[in-house]
Amino acid sequence: MQTEDGGSMLNAVLNRVDSGLDGSLERLFALLRIKSISADTHYRQDCREAAEWCARALNEIGIEAAVRDTIGHPMVVGHYRGAGAGAPHVLFYGHYDVQPVDPVGLWDRDPFDPAVVTVNGEARITARGAEDDKGQLMTFVEAARAWMSEAGRLPVNVTVLFEGEEESASPSMIPFLTANAEELRADIALVCDTSMWDRDTPAVSTMLRGLLYEEVFIQAASHDLHSGSYGSAARNPIHVLTKILADMRDENGRIAIPDFYDGVPDISPELKAQWDKLRFDEQNFFGEIGLSIPAGEVGYSTLEQIWARPTAEVNGIVGGYIGEGGKTVIPAKASAKISFRLVGDQDPEAIRRNFRAFVEARVPADCRATFLSHGGDRAITQPSDSPWVKRAQRALSEEWGREAVLIAMGGSIPIVTQFKRLLGMDTVLVGFGLEDDRIHSPNEKYNLRSFHGGIRSWARILKTLAE
Amino acid sequence: MQTEDGGSMLNAVLNRVDSGLDGSLERLFALLRIKSISADTHYRQDCREAAEWCARALNEIGIEAAVRDTIGHPMVVGHYRGAGAGAPHVLFYGHYDVQPVDPVGLWDRDPFDPAVVTVNGEARITARGAEDDKGQLMTFVEAARAWMSEAGRLPVNVTVLFEGEEESASPSMIPFLTANAEELRADIALVCDTSMWDRDTPAVSTMLRGLLYEEVFIQAASHDLHSGSYGSAARNPIHVLTKILADMRDENGRIAIPDFYDGVPDISPELKAQWDKLRFDEQNFFGEIGLSIPAGEVGYSTLEQIWARPTAEVNGIVGGYIGEGGKTVIPAKASAKISFRLVGDQDPEAIRRNFRAFVEARVPADCRATFLSHGGDRAITQPSDSPWVKRAQRALSEEWGREAVLIAMGGSIPIVTQFKRLLGMDTVLVGFGLEDDRIHSPNEKYNLRSFHGGIRSWARILKTLAE
Repeated sequence: MQTEDGGSMLNAVLNRVDSGLDGSLERLFALLRIKSISADTHYRQDCREAAEWCARALNEIGIEAAVRDTIGHPMVVGHYRGAGAGAPHVLFYGHYDVQPVDPVGLWDRDPFDPAVVTVNGEARITARGAEDDKGQLMTFVEAARAWMSEAGRLPVNVTVLFEGEEESASPSMIPFLTANAEELRADIALVCDTSMWDRDTPAVSTMLRGLLYEEVFIQAASHDLHSGSYGSAARNPIHVLTKILADMRDENGRIAIPDFYDGVPDISPELKAQWDKLRFDEQNFFGEIGLSIPAGEVGYSTLEQIWARPTAEVNGIVGGYIGEGGKTVIPAKASAKISFRLVGDQDPEAIRRNFRAFVEARVPADCRATFLSHGGDRAITQPSDSPWVKRAQRALSEEWGREAVLIAMGGSIPIVTQFKRLLGMDTVLVGFGLEDDRIHSPNEKYNLRSFHGGIRSWARILKTLAE
Repeated sequence: MQTEDGGSMLNAVLNRVDSGLDGSLERLFALLRIKSISADTHYRQDCREAAEWCARALNEIGIEAAVRDTIGHPMVVGHYRGAGAGAPHVLFYGHYDVQPVDPVGLWDRDPFDPAVVTVNGEARITARGAEDDKGQLMTFVEAARAWMSEAGRLPVNVTVLFEGEEESASPSMIPFLTANAEELRADIALVCDTSMWDRDTPAVSTMLRGLLYEEVFIQAASHDLHSGSYGSAARNPIHVLTKILADMRDENGRIAIPDFYDGVPDISPELKAQWDKLRFDEQNFFGEIGLSIPAGEVGYSTLEQIWARPTAEVNGIVGGYIGEGGKTVIPAKASAKISFRLVGDQDPEAIRRNFRAFVEARVPADCRATFLSHGGDRAITQPSDSPWVKRAQRALSEEWGREAVLIAMGGSIPIVTQFKRLLGMDTVLVGFGLEDDRIHSPNEKYNLRSFHGGIRSWARILKTLAE
């Protein structure tokens, strides 16, 4: 598809991406060699080095960038205003830090000595961070480089934000966004930290579930009791707790907390039809984790269960004696951590209230429940007719020769929530990872096709966003 | 009550107990000064010293005794055969080891510097082991001493067995009983390690609940999963486990495992009537542990619940993330420790089978339950018309001027089970502890009245056992 001016220019840019691929790879390798493990203080200087490398790379292509200190690892912020006042303004986010590499003995080669190796006829870039997120963020940087080299300009105004704490809970992000809200706010955020649907099908993630996380403590007796002297007469808080948790789900996998489903939208027929077309391989999904039977809400497909339905999962439980052997104790207390994945307009505050009331109603009068909150965020949903989503979808479909699908993510991505909450900004999530990239594990890889196709995809998206 | 010969002799023995009380106290103090803490290897030599002290004390009064080595702390075994072939033969058991004294700062005085102090008009022997079990075992030794001094003989043949590992799980007891079964077997065992019903009412414990201890592990996925990616679709083993545990008890506190109540006897009207007369203070029982509402089987008194009814208690549960804060994990496995208190003829093997089948029936086909046994012992019940019980009861009633009551114990006493299983011997449990003796805690005490009345009680029991 070729428009009168941009069409031929885009082709020239894409040709430059192709002919410059070796140079793009070299630059990615240089970044991959830096041991920017954010969770380990031994690599503090390496993280700074990676930030400085990124800032240099951005400046080199005309995105004016600086390393910005935080109490943790530095941010890199860059600005490009050359598209002019009338052009859209996008914020591109990525992270230059990587996961630790332990156990290093399980790697086939040095995780910080990147290489392209061929496995099953597929060229793979292998290194820690090859995908997550150095490879992915470089797809954008290299697309911008190709535009600048060929056209001398980018089609849109761009702010770049790279962080170095994504793999260690981003302690500096909220203060930084708050302090620099004006500088960072744009029309739309772009995040490249997600996956394609499969090897051939590009995807835009438009739904992220929210998260409410509660911890509950049930206190019964004032101190641990001997089960011989008190057994059955004295209340056992593990019994109280397990009964409450069992009551929380009915036999159809529905959550029994009152009003829990308020604000849960029906999945639109269009989206449902599109998801049905994805030919989600349920058998494989369960087979890979050693299971075979869907455990969620009766009446919903597995894909709906993990993308579009709310959940209540007990993430941890503990009470009484948990060492080796047997101890005949009736503990004084027991506790559980419970997280709720939220969708649509579910209100974390209301669910917190209703959950706590649900528990309180089941605690005997001589026992006590106390609660600890570990946060709550609403779900993020991009309307599937959002122009930003449509434009990204169009560019991806053209590049990959197959309709880009709109998918959802079962988990939350904190940065997307923070962009929404602190900067009032929606996010378009586009990424080129594959399910078998082994991010966070030994032998992380990024297919050369993902890297190359990713650069080409961003080259196209930069143009469609301006249309 | 005075019989033609024994009556006046008994009176003389009792008088000697009274006039010799200072000497008895001095000897108890000497034993209490030995720091025989069995759980702490620093006190290994002190434990041996206590064993040697006991052996000397027994030899001194004509019970031929020796220290017998084990792989742990030594046993003391003594024999007296002077009552002749026609007289009954009793095995008296006690333990010379004591609990650790930490936190020592909470003691009002040095735990190994015994003294008689007066509190609320009550003379109390205070020291670690004052009650448990040095004070209690010395009531028997001093009663035997009075008989030997006054009558030159004991009314019954006696074997004495003192161990030094009771407070550290008695690792040597089973091998020792097995290796020395012939030497140790007697007509009846006497154990002095229990309590009176209250300050004025002596008691014989005739029912001890049995114990079956099971651990169950529920395995779901092959590895821990992210609750965002898998939440609700993938089986959460904590949900499986909590549902099983919740199903195990119905709303009336009855255990739902099939055939669980097979072999559970009705409480006889006589025993029930006697227990009703005990005026058990339910409010105080619960108040002391910070509770107020009986949690056990509907239709049974609290005393019945803890003495005569079987239980199923979850003693420990663990699964998923139990550290600080929140982690969004669906664990691969979860586990619980469950103990059953057994009564009457309940068969631990049958209950183990039925429990496991109950669990298996509730585990989804793609999950797996595995089990670990932590042992199983039947309940011990002495028929209330046992002549040994009747004789002890009569002696106690005469001494304390109040009908001795037959009580039960909710817990198990392993030595009683082992006497039954390894030596085929019943046990009569008589002790003079009080609820507020703070055994295992700082400021352990034994009332002087318990010690004095205890010696006099054994003096009488030794005679009634021969009748």
